[in-house]
Amino acid sequence: MKAHIIIIGDEILIGQTIDTNSAWIGAELNKLGFDIWRITSIHDNRIEILNALKEASGKTDVVLVTGGLGPTSDDITKPTLCEFFGTRLILNAEVHLMIKEMMSRRGFPMNENNSRQADVPESCRVLTNATGTAPGMWFENDGTIFISMPGVPYEMKYIMNQHVIPELNKRFTTQSILHRNIMTYGEPEARLAEILSGFESSLPSFIKLAYLPSSGVIKLRLTAAGNDSNILSSGLDEQVKILYAIIPNLIFSEWEESLESVIGRLLIEMKKSICTAESCTGGRIANMITSIPGSSLYFKGSVIAYNNSVKTELLGVSDGTLSRYGAVSEQVVIEMAEGIRQKFKTDFSVSTSGISGPDGGTPLKPVGTVWIAVASEKETITSRHVFGNSRIINIDRFSIAALSMLRRQIINH
Amino acid sequence: MKAHIIIIGDEILIGQTIDTNSAWIGAELNKLGFDIWRITSIHDNRIEILNALKEASGKTDVVLVTGGLGPTSDDITKPTLCEFFGTRLILNAEVHLMIKEMMSRRGFPMNENNSRQADVPESCRVLTNATGTAPGMWFENDGTIFISMPGVPYEMKYIMNQHVIPELNKRFTTQSILHRNIMTYGEPEARLAEILSGFESSLPSFIKLAYLPSSGVIKLRLTAAGNDSNILSSGLDEQVKILYAIIPNLIFSEWEESLESVIGRLLIEMKKSICTAESCTGGRIANMITSIPGSSLYFKGSVIAYNNSVKTELLGVSDGTLSRYGAVSEQVVIEMAEGIRQKFKTDFSVSTSGISGPDGGTPLKPVGTVWIAVASEKETITSRHVFGNSRIINIDRFSIAALSMLRRQIINH
Repeated sequence: MKAHIIIIGDEILIGQTIDTNSAWIGAELNKLGFDIWRITSIHDNRIEILNALKEASGKTDVVLVTGGLGPTSDDITKPTLCEFFGTRLILNAEVHLMIKEMMSRRGFPMNENNSRQADVPESCRVLTNATGTAPGMWFENDGTIFISMPGVPYEMKYIMNQHVIPELNKRFTTQSILHRNIMTYGEPEARLAEILSGFESSLPSFIKLAYLPSSGVIKLRLTAAGNDSNILSSGLDEQVKILYAIIPNLIFSEWEESLESVIGRLLIEMKKSICTAESCTGGRIANMITSIPGSSLYFKGSVIAYNNSVKTELLGVSDGTLSRYGAVSEQVVIEMAEGIRQKFKTDFSVSTSGISGPDGGTPLKPVGTVWIAVASEKETITSRHVFGNSRIINIDRFSIAALSMLRRQIINH
Repeated sequence: MKAHIIIIGDEILIGQTIDTNSAWIGAELNKLGFDIWRITSIHDNRIEILNALKEASGKTDVVLVTGGLGPTSDDITKPTLCEFFGTRLILNAEVHLMIKEMMSRRGFPMNENNSRQADVPESCRVLTNATGTAPGMWFENDGTIFISMPGVPYEMKYIMNQHVIPELNKRFTTQSILHRNIMTYGEPEARLAEILSGFESSLPSFIKLAYLPSSGVIKLRLTAAGNDSNILSSGLDEQVKILYAIIPNLIFSEWEESLESVIGRLLIEMKKSICTAESCTGGRIANMITSIPGSSLYFKGSVIAYNNSVKTELLGVSDGTLSRYGAVSEQVVIEMAEGIRQKFKTDFSVSTSGISGPDGGTPLKPVGTVWIAVASEKETITSRHVFGNSRIINIDRFSIAALSMLRRQIINH
């Protein structure tokens, strides 16, 4: 059971618009058990559309096409579909009425462009669209289903949800595909793969493992495929249990949650509060924490101490410590974390001081070096990391390392 | 002059990851004058990769492939490339050394997986990668150039910028395409298009205008195409001059610079300093400011006052003001901006207080409401905006509105 997604639009090819339709369609079809064979993005051009349709014929069960159905002159999909399927455009009364009503609701007169949108290929089944003026179309040809939809994301989603997904679900009783996304932090991909090589080779044949790294976080995706979703689900449960036994300290979520979201959940459960004192991360940690709805319940605030005077005056870092050890040092992050925790009266605090780059490195403290401290009533712990040369990436990785340390301290509390 | 982009990765097909690489590559190649013929996303699977490479051969001048180059076992691109090009993997000493140095800097031992990443197909030219362990590869076969790069966006971008774009630029002398990206803030797209309708219709035939909106910033892209780049360039200069005459107050850069970068440049030129006091933006403004290299020259720090106690104790906002007007009010942002400017002893300060959502709105202060103040020695100015319902988008739009106000105050000083 295979599907092919074809995206029509020059704006996609020249990178002016990022195609999010194919990801959405892919995820929905995947849930139905379809193997997405390919996604192909092509020019808004008669020859290219004809070629793509020809190439797609007979390769998969379903071909989903989006784009090229607007009222303006650069849209030529509909006549090209007629040419390909050997049919002609005829006025569809139901669609014409829907468009007329929609225009009058919005207070616009019905013009010629709108009327033309009610013309549909004679051989297709019309998929009505209550969210816009372009209907979807369903063709069947030589054993392949072709579905054409507008490229505007919410119109495409309406037609998919209203017509396409229920119909495909009815027609194709199929193999299930289940995923489990285990989030880890603490080992790089190559090292994690080494630790998990035995686990991977002893997976049952219907479960596959993939590594998806991003800014130091590695998502382990377990995918199970088969006919009985109960077997798949319990098979995945069992493998997740084994993973926990092998790397208990690396896993922070088994449901694709971000670190800042996990931390938020923990703090709400435990009724604890946090604050941050950031130098090199410049507010990034606070920004990540406050991206979570409801974070005002546990996050009190931060001091971003870019300048050393802020470290001494607001956070109480001593001049002596700064001059003896330098701003990027274990001693300074300890004083920062303890200083802000006292000032903001929170249960936990986290602090960072490092060199994001591109300049400012020394042989002993190269660009990419960071010191992190997490303070609580019980203790203050620290760690030092050295990442790469890119400023933006370093700020991100410093912040994620700090959140990971914070999460562990919250749990160990 | 045509190009084809092939994206390898199951995570793209099942919609777990939105493919942003192809849009970035498409935009860059388009600038060089390439017609992007197709973007094809395929499975991480030997047969599918071989088929896609075979189909792509001879169709375009350049085929750019991303993905499938990680150290783990789900990555099989490299052996498949060897099979397709009839070559074998050999250890590349330079790459091996780069990986070793990178691992030792990060404090990790070099394991077998890392070593394997230094194996490259014998017949390719290696494109070194200073941002990760997987190098890029350049093949030439039957008149088609094939370029394979890692799928991690910043690694792909590094290899494109460092190797691929300069080389393609040298090899393909072509019709010139020049772009000028004029950055504006202050009017929504539909209104800006109305203001510029006369400008657009009187553009010379070789110049086109496009609107690219993002978080309130609208990039006006002028594209000139033709054989003589001098004519194109002076034609663009002339149109930019006309634009400045029509919308002098909306333009903040004509070189695709971000607001935070423009602000940094201005502050360095004028030897002035800033700080921020953020409530609803939660550190996002500081994060944007400190993303700019060298920002420590003008940015002293911030107080993120999520909790009202931080507003009173650290910023000196009076309890009376808070209880009389509420935290989201003109009076509070004025006291925040003036309080932090005094405390941090900077020339300028900016403050925000608002309701990011999804909860916390009232009929008088709905979700999406923000008050912003900018303080300087001369005066304190304020503004109020109401944006949408999405928390993440609101935080972004609040921050950009604040930076825009800050920029105008710096200029008017």
